[in-house]
Amino acid sequence: MSLTGTYDDANIFAKILRGELPCIKAFEDEVALAFMDIFPQGRGHTLVIPKGAQARNLLDFPAEMFGPYLERVQRVARAVTAALEPDGFQILQFNGAPAGQTVFHLHFHIIPRWDSVALAGHGHARRADDAELQDIARAIAAAM
Amino acid sequence: MSLTGTYDDANIFAKILRGELPCIKAFEDEVALAFMDIFPQGRGHTLVIPKGAQARNLLDFPAEMFGPYLERVQRVARAVTAALEPDGFQILQFNGAPAGQTVFHLHFHIIPRWDSVALAGHGHARRADDAELQDIARAIAAAM
Repeated sequence: MSLTGTYDDANIFAKILRGELPCIKAFEDEVALAFMDIFPQGRGHTLVIPKGAQARNLLDFPAEMFGPYLERVQRVARAVTAALEPDGFQILQFNGAPAGQTVFHLHFHIIPRWDSVALAGHGHARRADDAELQDIARAIAAAM
Repeated sequence: MSLTGTYDDANIFAKILRGELPCIKAFEDEVALAFMDIFPQGRGHTLVIPKGAQARNLLDFPAEMFGPYLERVQRVARAVTAALEPDGFQILQFNGAPAGQTVFHLHFHIIPRWDSVALAGHGHARRADDAELQDIARAIAAAM
């Protein structure tokens, strides 16, 4: 899968944005949607996706939209850390299948980290329990 | 190392920004500096750091500076991919020592990925050859 190509609006994040697929939502406004990764690499693994741009990856995202989008990533990261009190967190953003990208709508991962707790590999995690994810999403939403 | 704390202007990226330590530069303007990681996790591993803010991590970066900063990250990523033609690339950004952060000045990693080529672990990579890094930096700079 090349870094260049046409945006496919049948990707699952596009479907989530259109309400055609469900998600466990932590935050939403006119700029971005944040929801729980159902195959979390760690507790509290949250995705933040932009609205209003058909961007497959970082390279084809309109430059003028980075400010509002990253401001949401920061706000969600603050809420994730306030709600879950991790020791740190990682921001991951993959571009192209060889880099681990599996959904071709630009997204930032927020992955809380705790001392001495390893991550599940991207694409190798187990599907999480929905009720547990809903509890986490509610805690993040309450901290926004 | 907590996610909160005071910015220490003796960190090595602050010293690089002040010209007190050298770096192998790929790009610089008034907003950001991009240079080669001397312990690369893969060929072309580039760091992009912001100027003008004493930010330890993503949480304490002034929100209004994300737009200009990420626009530079995107431009450098485009140049890295144009120069090195990887199959993909990863953006990594670590917050707090338990998340892998080793220098407490906000930075984004751009790591090109090729099919079937694994990464060296963060903090476990070997020091790269300066001449090779200089060749890569020149190629990136030429593609900016």
